[in-house]
Amino acid sequence: MTLHLDDLRVRHLGECRHDSPLSAMLAAKRTSPHYVAEGDRVLLEDTVSMLAEHGLPPEDLPSFEAAGPRRKIYFDPAQVTAGIVTCGGLCPGLNDVIRGLVQELTVQYDVKRIVGFRNGLRGLTARHRDDTIELTPDRVRDIHNAGGTILGSSRGAQDAEEMVDSLLLRGINVLFVIGGDGGMNAATNLAAAIRARGLDIAVIGVPKTIDNDLPYTDQSFGFQSAFAQAANFISSVSIEAAASPDGIGIVKLMGRHSGFIACYASLARNAADIVLIPEVPFALEGEDGLLARVERHVRSKGFVVIVVAEGAGQDLLAERGLLEGGATDASGNAKLGDIGGLLRETITAHLTAAGLAPTVRYIDPSYAIRSVTANAYDSVYCLRLAHAAVHAAMAGRTETAVVRWRRRFVHVPMPLIISHRNQVDPDGDLWMSVLEATGHLGQQQPLLVER
Amino acid sequence: MTLHLDDLRVRHLGECRHDSPLSAMLAAKRTSPHYVAEGDRVLLEDTVSMLAEHGLPPEDLPSFEAAGPRRKIYFDPAQVTAGIVTCGGLCPGLNDVIRGLVQELTVQYDVKRIVGFRNGLRGLTARHRDDTIELTPDRVRDIHNAGGTILGSSRGAQDAEEMVDSLLLRGINVLFVIGGDGGMNAATNLAAAIRARGLDIAVIGVPKTIDNDLPYTDQSFGFQSAFAQAANFISSVSIEAAASPDGIGIVKLMGRHSGFIACYASLARNAADIVLIPEVPFALEGEDGLLARVERHVRSKGFVVIVVAEGAGQDLLAERGLLEGGATDASGNAKLGDIGGLLRETITAHLTAAGLAPTVRYIDPSYAIRSVTANAYDSVYCLRLAHAAVHAAMAGRTETAVVRWRRRFVHVPMPLIISHRNQVDPDGDLWMSVLEATGHLGQQQPLLVER
Amino acid sequence: MTLHLDDLRVRHLGECRHDSPLSAMLAAKRTSPHYVAEGDRVLLEDTVSMLAEHGLPPEDLPSFEAAGPRRKIYFDPAQVTAGIVTCGGLCPGLNDVIRGLVQELTVQYDVKRIVGFRNGLRGLTARHRDDTIELTPDRVRDIHNAGGTILGSSRGAQDAEEMVDSLLLRGINVLFVIGGDGGMNAATNLAAAIRARGLDIAVIGVPKTIDNDLPYTDQSFGFQSAFAQAANFISSVSIEAAASPDGIGIVKLMGRHSGFIACYASLARNAADIVLIPEVPFALEGEDGLLARVERHVRSKGFVVIVVAEGAGQDLLAERGLLEGGATDASGNAKLGDIGGLLRETITAHLTAAGLAPTVRYIDPSYAIRSVTANAYDSVYCLRLAHAAVHAAMAGRTETAVVRWRRRFVHVPMPLIISHRNQVDPDGDLWMSVLEATGHLGQQQPLLVER
Amino acid sequence: MTLHLDDLRVRHLGECRHDSPLSAMLAAKRTSPHYVAEGDRVLLEDTVSMLAEHGLPPEDLPSFEAAGPRRKIYFDPAQVTAGIVTCGGLCPGLNDVIRGLVQELTVQYDVKRIVGFRNGLRGLTARHRDDTIELTPDRVRDIHNAGGTILGSSRGAQDAEEMVDSLLLRGINVLFVIGGDGGMNAATNLAAAIRARGLDIAVIGVPKTIDNDLPYTDQSFGFQSAFAQAANFISSVSIEAAASPDGIGIVKLMGRHSGFIACYASLARNAADIVLIPEVPFALEGEDGLLARVERHVRSKGFVVIVVAEGAGQDLLAERGLLEGGATDASGNAKLGDIGGLLRETITAHLTAAGLAPTVRYIDPSYAIRSVTANAYDSVYCLRLAHAAVHAAMAGRTETAVVRWRRRFVHVPMPLIISHRNQVDPDGDLWMSVLEATGHLGQQQPLLVER
Repeated sequence: MTLHLDDLRVRHLGECRHDSPLSAMLAAKRTSPHYVAEGDRVLLEDTVSMLAEHGLPPEDLPSFEAAGPRRKIYFDPAQVTAGIVTCGGLCPGLNDVIRGLVQELTVQYDVKRIVGFRNGLRGLTARHRDDTIELTPDRVRDIHNAGGTILGSSRGAQDAEEMVDSLLLRGINVLFVIGGDGGMNAATNLAAAIRARGLDIAVIGVPKTIDNDLPYTDQSFGFQSAFAQAANFISSVSIEAAASPDGIGIVKLMGRHSGFIACYASLARNAADIVLIPEVPFALEGEDGLLARVERHVRSKGFVVIVVAEGAGQDLLAERGLLEGGATDASGNAKLGDIGGLLRETITAHLTAAGLAPTVRYIDPSYAIRSVTANAYDSVYCLRLAHAAVHAAMAGRTETAVVRWRRRFVHVPMPLIISHRNQVDPDGDLWMSVLEATGHLGQQQPLLVER
Repeated sequence: MTLHLDDLRVRHLGECRHDSPLSAMLAAKRTSPHYVAEGDRVLLEDTVSMLAEHGLPPEDLPSFEAAGPRRKIYFDPAQVTAGIVTCGGLCPGLNDVIRGLVQELTVQYDVKRIVGFRNGLRGLTARHRDDTIELTPDRVRDIHNAGGTILGSSRGAQDAEEMVDSLLLRGINVLFVIGGDGGMNAATNLAAAIRARGLDIAVIGVPKTIDNDLPYTDQSFGFQSAFAQAANFISSVSIEAAASPDGIGIVKLMGRHSGFIACYASLARNAADIVLIPEVPFALEGEDGLLARVERHVRSKGFVVIVVAEGAGQDLLAERGLLEGGATDASGNAKLGDIGGLLRETITAHLTAAGLAPTVRYIDPSYAIRSVTANAYDSVYCLRLAHAAVHAAMAGRTETAVVRWRRRFVHVPMPLIISHRNQVDPDGDLWMSVLEATGHLGQQQPLLVER
Repeated sequence: MTLHLDDLRVRHLGECRHDSPLSAMLAAKRTSPHYVAEGDRVLLEDTVSMLAEHGLPPEDLPSFEAAGPRRKIYFDPAQVTAGIVTCGGLCPGLNDVIRGLVQELTVQYDVKRIVGFRNGLRGLTARHRDDTIELTPDRVRDIHNAGGTILGSSRGAQDAEEMVDSLLLRGINVLFVIGGDGGMNAATNLAAAIRARGLDIAVIGVPKTIDNDLPYTDQSFGFQSAFAQAANFISSVSIEAAASPDGIGIVKLMGRHSGFIACYASLARNAADIVLIPEVPFALEGEDGLLARVERHVRSKGFVVIVVAEGAGQDLLAERGLLEGGATDASGNAKLGDIGGLLRETITAHLTAAGLAPTVRYIDPSYAIRSVTANAYDSVYCLRLAHAAVHAAMAGRTETAVVRWRRRFVHVPMPLIISHRNQVDPDGDLWMSVLEATGHLGQQQPLLVER
Repeated sequence: MTLHLDDLRVRHLGECRHDSPLSAMLAAKRTSPHYVAEGDRVLLEDTVSMLAEHGLPPEDLPSFEAAGPRRKIYFDPAQVTAGIVTCGGLCPGLNDVIRGLVQELTVQYDVKRIVGFRNGLRGLTARHRDDTIELTPDRVRDIHNAGGTILGSSRGAQDAEEMVDSLLLRGINVLFVIGGDGGMNAATNLAAAIRARGLDIAVIGVPKTIDNDLPYTDQSFGFQSAFAQAANFISSVSIEAAASPDGIGIVKLMGRHSGFIACYASLARNAADIVLIPEVPFALEGEDGLLARVERHVRSKGFVVIVVAEGAGQDLLAERGLLEGGATDASGNAKLGDIGGLLRETITAHLTAAGLAPTVRYIDPSYAIRSVTANAYDSVYCLRLAHAAVHAAMAGRTETAVVRWRRRFVHVPMPLIISHRNQVDPDGDLWMSVLEATGHLGQQQPLLVER
């Protein structure tokens, strides 16, 4: 977390020598609260005390290169063939990003050819027979009205050299990788392989994660659409639980390492009584354990609603031998145990033993959340992110991700984006809001026993 | 815009002497990327060059007091009677804020009595017979499922002394004013009158504006819900225009001085061909004038969609004698001329003269936007804003507004909030995005002739 | 209304000689509660007393030919070129019908060529330069996700002979006309012209009306989507009115001659206090007049919500000289006076004179209703209607409309469909429900003074 | 199915002697296409051939008593205490029915006291401590904005005598039972026990089933809202499947005995490739078996979407020993085996063996469908159904259900409503539409091998 200016510098393919088509328009602009001029940078820190800790003059403070159009660009648009690929799990807004990239490349820069690779990184390899799609403004005009990705996706890594060959074969000199952890990692390796061969190909990342676990990012695209849809399921389960005597509602939401969706969705409806996230451990047994709390809720108001992130309570599963040690999924992530199932069973057993007759409503709506259409906000956000990605690529940045930081679009070196995860801070404002909203803030034990 | 630290300091009623019920929980926290500790402050500026301009040590840089709970508070919760009032036009999220205030006051601080004033500031005066509502957690539990405000609202100022009497009469020592320009202005006057009388009543503002024209605010609450709904009308009109030969779709949106709704709603659907906002003047006549552009669109793609903020083109109306000089509405704002009507008429006349047979679809959906329910994001935002407002009041801040700045909740002196308006910067990123999305960026004339 | 069997017979182009591709599947079916076999018919009447009035044996009772596939068909699918045209104002479900027609023609009957005419009947004439669209399953796959019609539309009649020429020129032998009054009238004339020339071209109508004013039809397609959207505007205006002191909410809805949308939308939210429709005259003045009632509502509950169909109260406008005598619109309909405007003005004047300070919220959301996407029910309905239309055409029916009657799809001769309008019966169940829901049923004067 | 007039007669508590408050309004009405007069009846049959089969004069044809207000009523409203109970699983519209009952009882009939029983039939027994709710117009005003039932519900039968005691204890003389099979059965038993004791208590049923499996009912309330929501999940899974190489989407929907939701939801989006319902048996193996069909879809278009009703393929589960013989759930229904799980496993195994690498997306969204808010259409329907139920009760009908038949509200004797189930007719129009829409109609084997 003690980043220095150098850690935050992005790679350039080379000097920008071409006039941008936007050059004239940009000539007169300078840094303002609404615009970050070329060459200026956006601060990493935003409080007086964090700034004071550095003890540095402003120009040496940790900061990000601002995104946006440059007067001089690296590539001659007439010579550009762009490629686009979407990787990993679905997330609202993928089609919006694709659409934004295609429109910006063609309308503003007059790029003539854009290739969409099918089925994620698999489409970038020779081994797979998967074809490509020619992407034109007409083809992408209405794609934002549907969720998912018109390019398809897949999980898992592919050989970097093989992917470089594939790019060369198709004459791609600008590649946009829209993907998560796995995708950004692959893109970093790909960019390294390109650099090792001395090739003139820019690789720009548009980081995607439905879990909002990206560092150096205000909020990942699609997150708002996702938690809004998640909130609908909390309402559904809450209505079911409230209508059943001794009703127990459990909603398992996405969040392998970070409980953002669980927190925001719970705040949005304010119908959850208990929120369980990976960042805050909890006990099942004991007076302040989950089971006792659930029982108290059922006895006092007749039902209880629990929102649980999929990554919560993995230690409890491990203790009970319910985790496959070392197992990983197609993306290379450790396989999670089924915390929802564990809750359902232990709560049912506990309440039955306590003389109640619980009716449990359990739902895992993951696919119905991932596939949702981007809402108006995310549509705007994806469009602007796509614009920034195109400007970055045309200006010759590479191994660079475009993100939004403190409401500014900035360039972040790709390795930083995968260096660690953004998590809910148990001491931070968001978790405090969750505790306030679920009525647990004033209690001596914040939510559940710290173990 | 060259604010100094002193300008950003908020008023306190006095020393905080009571232990907060949240005190234990807060003890160990310190400033982090997710939490701003008591006493720390949030920077006003966020770029290297803006910081450098000040040439000051960090502790003297312009910055805001962080919002949030304090270990010591000013009021003894057992002695608090809170009042809530909503003023001005409707905006999504009003009920969410009311609900959040009531829940936080009762659940976290154990405040026993909360009074809701009916019909805006009118309800705070003796002259009006309007009654009050007792607000309890049970009363407000489901109110966020509907738009509007359960308290009612009204426009126009009221006598400050009379309002102070009304507060005294009802024993209110903490008043929350949810309102816009007019409301914040009234709250400032009210706080001044309270101070003049040496009374111990805190006045906290939760600034509201559907136009997003508040300064020192990332985005005003309800704005996302509003522009999402506005975007639906752009779609509607776009479908109507596209289905008519020589179809003209015109959507007039809110935005007296600031075109944010017009910009964001246009970006969200990307169906607008022309966006007109108060900040960017335009000509009707001439080769680059609006009429010629409209005609070009109709001739090339068969129809055109225009989004116009209500405050755009007022100079054109004035020139044509279509503005009532000096007329003001109930809130004291200058009455706007009907730019939508002017466009409808001049475009119809121009195209008819040009041999086309335009079908014009014009809609002004203002009421259907203002009354919409807050979406999931705004619900969360309103809830957290309400929490921050309660913390501020309990800690004895007064004449203070709670807002979000650079994704941090902060305290801003009320006079600053009404000192000027946030506007779309014609040189800024947002307008650039609009130009990019409507395909006007690369043109020599940005959108329409600068006059 | 005393229809005889002969009035209900549809025209055939000739004997059905070809085996249908669906022949084998149909072989074993006979009339049941879920299927009407070939040759069987659906009764016009549904009560004992209406049946008794005829005093006829069942086979002579007024009844409709059942729609659906036939074992023998008239056209050889390999020789068919189909045409599709959409006419008149927008209505939810137009794209669903187009999509259903194209899918059924190609998938079930293996028709190779389908031509979509642009811009309504204009596209069927030589005079207009409007082109046509080749319609394929791929082209129409996702069109139901958007409102409007991909073919465009227009109002107004065209020369029948010219349209016949146009069909011949393009080799069309099956034409589907999706349209309202005007469209069905034009299709009837077109079919007559075809018959007069002895041509072998089937003309099948899919009647469309957002007002639900078609006779012999359970409910017109798109109606449910339309009134659902209309109900949203009633909610909006109701929220606005309730939040203003002396608030008056007025929503003007579609309904030239029939108040169905006004009635259903009012029932759906149950937020309307007064519903005004063309079928039930009302007075403004007098103790039971509208103005007095409005005043009573405002005085008792603080606000009032009025839903008015555009065709209501035309007599009041005429009395005041506010109707252009004899004026007609592009579709040939008499131009309506602005009843919404009259209400706004007279109510404001009346209440102001009565010492109140009304805030009026008036909205006419017509375009935002017409352009809405079909809801799930209407999507299913449109799809099944399209299937029925294709079966009718392939079996050689012509001058025939396909509609749903008593939940059965049937064939109705086109002239019958335009013979009169379906209206809200002031003595019927629907209006009784409206009176019950608005609390007027038990009053001596049903809703408003019968004049 | 060969019902006679007598089978369709409903029970009366006795002669109607009181003037209805609606009497004056009703005086002049007679049977019309929009109103069924008192004493008139609605025909059961609707085709010429079905009518001819009876060979009876109209007055002896099978027909239902029309619902609606009567001039003379049985109960003196001033003496009425009404009870309302909701039983069984959730269904959209329950709150709308409750609200409609309360409003009609109070506004039209001036009934002073209405008791809501909590937690279904359990609330009607002494054994359970569950309390009751006083229902007033104010209490129910906004309840239709949320799904579920404010009264709570439960499954399972209760002792009829005990329930009669409970009604007597509370002075109830009119009871409305909103429930499914189980609820109607219990209500029938309850009415029999009331009759046996010679008590003057009317029991009126408002039949509820999310599966639309009620006989003599056009469509059960909430069904449209339910299948619309179900269709959203088909879209979601379809988007997920399409974005995965060899993607398999499976949606399990409600439908123990009847596949209506599966059929309508599939038609609504037209995204399903295969629809499996209880009424149409299918084989897994063989050339026309499900597995081979799934493989063909995956190989030709890359993915497949399967919609399966929960009651489909139970014979396949039984064969494999995957059904608990004789097991029943709380409502006394035979426990269903998990057809979704069987499909997931056998399809995965089959495709893997065939050299494909399937990604399976399986979802069972039952709770998120049952808890949805009623859409506009269902809101209107529920309101009118509630009005009809109140009229029936006030006129002294008992053991009577109110339903809609051929778009008329009618009275059906309760035993008939539970005599059998409405099912999708494999020879009927609906299933034909499904086959047409999934492209299976023209095949020699309708959908899957008839076994």
